[in-house]
Amino acid sequence: MASEFKAGNLSFSIFGESHGKAIGVVIQGIPGGITLDFDKILEYTARRAPKADGTSTARSETDFPHIVSGVVDNVTTGTPICCVICNKDQRSNDYKSVSHLARPGHADYTGYIRYNGANDLRGGGHFSGRITAPLVFAGAVADQILLQKGIVTGAHIKAIGEVKDQSFDPVNVDKEQLLRVRSRYLPLIDTANDQLMRNVITGAFNNLDSVGGIIECCTLGMPVGVGSPMFDGLENRISQLVFGVPAVKGIEFGVGFEAAALFGSENNDEFYIDHKEIKTRTNNHGGILGGISSGMPIILRVAIKPTPSISRPQNTVDYTTMTEEVLQIKGRHDPCIVPRAVPCIESAVNLALLSFLI
Amino acid sequence: MASEFKAGNLSFSIFGESHGKAIGVVIQGIPGGITLDFDKILEYTARRAPKADGTSTARSETDFPHIVSGVVDNVTTGTPICCVICNKDQRSNDYKSVSHLARPGHADYTGYIRYNGANDLRGGGHFSGRITAPLVFAGAVADQILLQKGIVTGAHIKAIGEVKDQSFDPVNVDKEQLLRVRSRYLPLIDTANDQLMRNVITGAFNNLDSVGGIIECCTLGMPVGVGSPMFDGLENRISQLVFGVPAVKGIEFGVGFEAAALFGSENNDEFYIDHKEIKTRTNNHGGILGGISSGMPIILRVAIKPTPSISRPQNTVDYTTMTEEVLQIKGRHDPCIVPRAVPCIESAVNLALLSFLI
Amino acid sequence: MASEFKAGNLSFSIFGESHGKAIGVVIQGIPGGITLDFDKILEYTARRAPKADGTSTARSETDFPHIVSGVVDNVTTGTPICCVICNKDQRSNDYKSVSHLARPGHADYTGYIRYNGANDLRGGGHFSGRITAPLVFAGAVADQILLQKGIVTGAHIKAIGEVKDQSFDPVNVDKEQLLRVRSRYLPLIDTANDQLMRNVITGAFNNLDSVGGIIECCTLGMPVGVGSPMFDGLENRISQLVFGVPAVKGIEFGVGFEAAALFGSENNDEFYIDHKEIKTRTNNHGGILGGISSGMPIILRVAIKPTPSISRPQNTVDYTTMTEEVLQIKGRHDPCIVPRAVPCIESAVNLALLSFLI
Amino acid sequence: MASEFKAGNLSFSIFGESHGKAIGVVIQGIPGGITLDFDKILEYTARRAPKADGTSTARSETDFPHIVSGVVDNVTTGTPICCVICNKDQRSNDYKSVSHLARPGHADYTGYIRYNGANDLRGGGHFSGRITAPLVFAGAVADQILLQKGIVTGAHIKAIGEVKDQSFDPVNVDKEQLLRVRSRYLPLIDTANDQLMRNVITGAFNNLDSVGGIIECCTLGMPVGVGSPMFDGLENRISQLVFGVPAVKGIEFGVGFEAAALFGSENNDEFYIDHKEIKTRTNNHGGILGGISSGMPIILRVAIKPTPSISRPQNTVDYTTMTEEVLQIKGRHDPCIVPRAVPCIESAVNLALLSFLI
Repeated sequence: MASEFKAGNLSFSIFGESHGKAIGVVIQGIPGGITLDFDKILEYTARRAPKADGTSTARSETDFPHIVSGVVDNVTTGTPICCVICNKDQRSNDYKSVSHLARPGHADYTGYIRYNGANDLRGGGHFSGRITAPLVFAGAVADQILLQKGIVTGAHIKAIGEVKDQSFDPVNVDKEQLLRVRSRYLPLIDTANDQLMRNVITGAFNNLDSVGGIIECCTLGMPVGVGSPMFDGLENRISQLVFGVPAVKGIEFGVGFEAAALFGSENNDEFYIDHKEIKTRTNNHGGILGGISSGMPIILRVAIKPTPSISRPQNTVDYTTMTEEVLQIKGRHDPCIVPRAVPCIESAVNLALLSFLI
Repeated sequence: MASEFKAGNLSFSIFGESHGKAIGVVIQGIPGGITLDFDKILEYTARRAPKADGTSTARSETDFPHIVSGVVDNVTTGTPICCVICNKDQRSNDYKSVSHLARPGHADYTGYIRYNGANDLRGGGHFSGRITAPLVFAGAVADQILLQKGIVTGAHIKAIGEVKDQSFDPVNVDKEQLLRVRSRYLPLIDTANDQLMRNVITGAFNNLDSVGGIIECCTLGMPVGVGSPMFDGLENRISQLVFGVPAVKGIEFGVGFEAAALFGSENNDEFYIDHKEIKTRTNNHGGILGGISSGMPIILRVAIKPTPSISRPQNTVDYTTMTEEVLQIKGRHDPCIVPRAVPCIESAVNLALLSFLI
Repeated sequence: MASEFKAGNLSFSIFGESHGKAIGVVIQGIPGGITLDFDKILEYTARRAPKADGTSTARSETDFPHIVSGVVDNVTTGTPICCVICNKDQRSNDYKSVSHLARPGHADYTGYIRYNGANDLRGGGHFSGRITAPLVFAGAVADQILLQKGIVTGAHIKAIGEVKDQSFDPVNVDKEQLLRVRSRYLPLIDTANDQLMRNVITGAFNNLDSVGGIIECCTLGMPVGVGSPMFDGLENRISQLVFGVPAVKGIEFGVGFEAAALFGSENNDEFYIDHKEIKTRTNNHGGILGGISSGMPIILRVAIKPTPSISRPQNTVDYTTMTEEVLQIKGRHDPCIVPRAVPCIESAVNLALLSFLI
Repeated sequence: MASEFKAGNLSFSIFGESHGKAIGVVIQGIPGGITLDFDKILEYTARRAPKADGTSTARSETDFPHIVSGVVDNVTTGTPICCVICNKDQRSNDYKSVSHLARPGHADYTGYIRYNGANDLRGGGHFSGRITAPLVFAGAVADQILLQKGIVTGAHIKAIGEVKDQSFDPVNVDKEQLLRVRSRYLPLIDTANDQLMRNVITGAFNNLDSVGGIIECCTLGMPVGVGSPMFDGLENRISQLVFGVPAVKGIEFGVGFEAAALFGSENNDEFYIDHKEIKTRTNNHGGILGGISSGMPIILRVAIKPTPSISRPQNTVDYTTMTEEVLQIKGRHDPCIVPRAVPCIESAVNLALLSFLI
C-alpha cells in the first residue's frame, strides 16, 4: 500500500514519480464547508520548494498545486480533494547513466528487488524526495483546519551537523513563536545560528559532501484526552507518518532518548492546577501520556540523515551485472535536506493529529 | 481502535484490564498448517514475567497463555488464534486509595478524560504494562513462524541509566549471538555489565526510585526487497507497534540520531559483492533503505523511560476535585522495566516483520 | 482477515471453532460510560440459541456470554470488550466419520484447499453456524447503544419455503411493532402464518430435508445524512456484514430486485413536508439514497438458503482420495436455519449502523 | 472514507465531481512489471461512455483516461497508478435552476445534510454516475491482470424492465462466450432480444420516463480456495464494491433469492470428479462456498433501478426553504442506465477478485 495512509476518518493516497508527468495526492475525509485560504497554502508549500541561494538544489519546478476536485470557490465540498503538481523540469538524461548503479544511501537496489526491476528509476522515481510535495500540500490543508480549531504546529531546525540551536522551552511555547520560526528562511529559534549553519551547509557543498540534522516540532492547543493506548495513539500515528518522509532515521517524544538515563523522580512530571486547568510543571513526557494528549505542548524530535546524493566518487555495485563499480553522481542535489524537510515533518504531524479530530 | 493492529494480511486485537478477569489477544491471518512448539512459546513469554530477584515486581501472576482457538494438536488451523491469560492475583485494594490522584508519568488523567471517566483504573486498567503479556504471546507465535523462514530477531539491553553495554556489531551479527543474548537473565552482549546494571536497579529501588534504559534489537535473515516506500515501509510498521509498548519514548534505526551529525560521505554505506550477494561494508542504514529491507541486519534502538510508579511522595492533583494533593504510591512496582521490556520490543518487531511476509 | 470487521471507529474480531474450547469476540471502539443491561443482552442472544421444539437442532450448549474485559459493574470502560462463550457439548465423534467427504453446500472442500488441509473440520470448524453466537453478542451490545440513541432495528421472517408473510409497510413502521415481532417465537408480522411455517419446517424435517427463507429487516430512527457515496455507504457496510452470516445468498434494499421492472416514474419516491420534516410518500428507496440515510425506515431483505446438512444420502467426493462417495450426514441439524438467523441479520445491521455513529 | 476501497494489498481512491475540472483514481498495490495494453483499456472503458443512438445521454465527454503515474512504456512500475479524466463538456447552467430542489431518487437531499450543504451539486457532484468512469478504468486494469492469470469476467443484461434475456448456464460457460457478450452493443446472450429491449428503452424515453434492469455477471478461471469465511470472503468484497455503483438495489449469488423457496435436497450441489478435478453437477452455490471459491463459475446478479432523472414534472421539496415544489428536470439523461452499468459491475467484480490475488 506504500504511499497511502488511513486512520480514523482521514485517508490520503500519494502518487507520482519524480520525472513522470505529475505527482499529487487524493485526500479523503475532509469535512464539507471548510474555507481554505489558497494563498496561505502556497505560502506553506513554498517552504518545501528548492531555494536559489545555494543551500538547496537548483531544480526549478514550481510545485504549484492544482486542486482538481473537492474544493469549490475555496470551500471544501466534503468529497475527495485531489491535488496535481506537474513535473515541469525533467532533465532525465542526468540520471540515465547511473540507472543500474546502486547509489549508496538510496533505495535504488532495494526498490529494484521490491518491484521486480520495474520501478521508474529516473531521479529516484517514487522514492524521490520530490514526492513529499503532495505530502506538504496535504499538510497545508490539515494545518488550516487545525488552526481553525486553535491547534498550531511549528517546527524548527535544532541541529545541522554539529551546530545546535536551542530547544523549544517545552513548558512555555507560544503560538507567535511557532509562526515566527516557521516564516524564517532557516527556521531557527535563535537567528544568531543562521550564519553558522549556512557555513556548515556551504562547507559540505564545497567539499562535494552533504550534512544531516535534527528537526524539533511542537504542537500547541491539542485538546486533552485525544488518542488511544497501545497501537493507535498519538505517537503511533505520528511516527508512522514521520517515517514516510525520506531520510528520517529516528523519532523521539518529550525528553526521548535522554529519558533512558534519568531516574523516575527526575523524569516524572508533577501535576498542578493552573487557573483551573491541570498542567505539569515540567514536560518530559512531551504532551502525550498513554498515547493520549495531556494538554501540554506536544514535543518531538526527528533525526534527518545527510543527503545520500553526493558528488564524490563512491564505490558501489551494478545490481544487474553484479559487478563492483565506481559511481560519480551528477545532477543537482541538496547539500542539506534539513531546511526543506521542516515543512514535511510539520505536515506529517498535522495530518496525524487531524486524523484524530475529524 | 487502540489496542488493535492490522497490516497486510496480519491483524491482532488485544483485550483486558490489569485487574479484570483476563487479558488476551485474537490473532487473525496466521496461515494454516504451521506447527507451533508450545514449550518454546512458554520459554519466550516467561522472559516478560516478573522475576523474583528484586529487579522486578513481586506480583505472582503466572501469565500462562491458554490457547482457546485456532490451534489443534499444536498445528495452526488458519482460523483466528485466541489466547486468554487469566488474572489470578488481584490486590486491587492497593490501588483504591489512589484512584483519583493522577500518578505522574501515568495515563490516569489522560485516560480519565479520554474515556469520560469510565475506564477501569485499578492497576492502570488497560494502560497497565501487564497488557503487554498478550503482545508477547503474539510475538512468540510470530517468532516461531519467522524462525521457520530463517529470520531471527534478538534484543539486548544497551543501557540502564548511565551504564552502557556494547552494541551489536551492525555488520557482523550471528544467529547464535542473538539467541544466546536472548536466553540471559539480563540480556546483555557483555555479561561483565550484569552486576553493574543490577547495582543501578537495586540502587534505584533502595532509593524509592526507578531508572530507564535503552534496548537494541537486531533481525537477521530478512530477505531483500520487503517493505514499501513512504507510509507502509518497515520503519513505519515497526515504529507503530513499538510505540504500543508502554514507556517507549523514542526509536531510531541504524545510526539513528547520530546520523544528524555525520556528513554524507561518512554516513553512506558503500555496496560491494560478497560471494555473489550484494552487501554494504558498513551498516549505518540499519538494513532498511526507502522502507525496504536491504539484506543487511536490521538494527534499531528504543528508549525506555524509568517506571513512573515510584514509592516517593509526589505532588499531583485529584482530577475529580481539581485540588492539589500529595501522592504516595503503594503496591508492587518494577524499579526498572527495561529487562522485561526486551521481549516486548522483540515481539513488536517480530509482528511487524511477519505482517509483510504472510 | 476473515473473521474481522473494521469500519469507522468500530472493529470486532471473532474467534473459535464449533468444537474447540471456546468461541468469542473482541469489540474495539465502544465508548466508555455506556450502561449495558446484561439481562437484555441474554434475552437478545437467546433468540439465536437452539430451540427445543423440533424446529431447530437439539444441541444444548447454552451460549452463555462471559464478558472478560471492557465492562465494569455493567458500564463500558471504553477499552476492548471481550466476550467468551464456552463450547460445552462437543460430540465430535458424530463428525469424525465424515471428515474427508465434502458435504454438499458446505465449505469443507473450499476450506480444505484454503487452509492447506489444516483447518479444524469437526462440526464445520470456524465455518460453523455456531460462530454466529459471538456476532449476536456483539449485535446485542450494539442494539443497546443504538436504542439509547433512539434507533431500533427489528427483523421478521418474510418467507419460509413457499409460505410468505406480509412485509413491513415501508412507510409506516413503529417501534412497538419491531419489538413485538422480535419477541415472538417465530418472528412474524402476522402470527396466523406461524402454524403454516412450522408445518413446512416439520415437513422438511420428516422428509430428511431442509428449507430456506427470506428475512426482512427494518431500522427506525436513523438520523438523516449518515453514510457516504460509493464504497463506504450504508449498503456497503451492511452487505459486507450480512454476507458474513453463513447461508446468506442475496441482499436487497427498498424494493430491491423488483426495481428492475419498474419505470422511473413508478420507482421514484416523491418528497414532501410532514410536520416540518422532509419525508417521502413511498419508500421504494428503502431509507438510503447515495449510500446516505434519508430519515425514512431502512428496509432490506436477505435470502437464506436451506440448511445444507440434510439426513438424506448424497453423492459427493472424498477430497483427499479424489474418489466419489455417498455421504450420509449424522448429527443434529436445523431443518430450517431461518428463525435463528433473524437475530444474526439484526446484529449485522446493528453493527454496521453503529460503525457510522461512534 | 467514501470513495475509497482497501482490501488485501489493493486499494484505490476515486476523486472528482461531475462538473469539476477532472475526475480520476489512484490505484495502489498493482505489482511492478505487468504489461498493460492501453488500446484494450480504451476498448473496455468505451463501453461505459455515452452512446449516440438514443439509448443513452448525449453528453459528449470522451472519458479519455490520462495515466499520470505508475506506468512507464506500458509497463507498471509497482508504484501508485494515477489516472485523470478531464471533464470537457460542462453545461452547468442546466443544473443551476434545480440546485435546491431534491430530485426524487437522487442523493441531493441526503448529500446536502451529510456535507453540511457544502457538496458540489452541479450534475450530482461526486454522486454523479460519471464518477464511475475512473472505477471502470481501474476495472480495465484489473481485467488485464486477471486475464494474464487466466481469469475472465463478463456480464450481460438479464432484464430490461419486463423483457428478460436468458441466463448464463451456470455450469457451462466458456471464455469465448463471455468475451463475445462483452463486445456486443447491448451485451446480451441472445441477440434476438436486442430490438425488444431497445423498444422498452425508447418507449420509456418517449414517455419522458426511464426503466431499470438486471445484470448478470460470471467469472471463469478463479482458482479454488481463494477467499475467507465471515466478513472478508468473496461475497463480502464483491458486494461492498458493487453497491458502490450508483443505482444498485440488490445483489445475489448463485440461485440467490430463489434459494429461499428450495429444499436442501434441491439446492445442494453434489460433488463429483471430472478429469481429476472436483466439480459440482449443478451450480446453485454460484462458485462460492463459505466465502471461498469452489472452482465453479462465479455467478451473481445485480438489480439496477430505473434512472431517477426523468423529464416528467415531479413533486418534491426545496430543502433549504422547506417548501413543497414541482420539479421539471432538464438536461440530458439516460433513459436506461443498465447497458452502461454492465462494465461498471464487471469492474467492481474484477477489482474485488484482484484484491485477493495480489
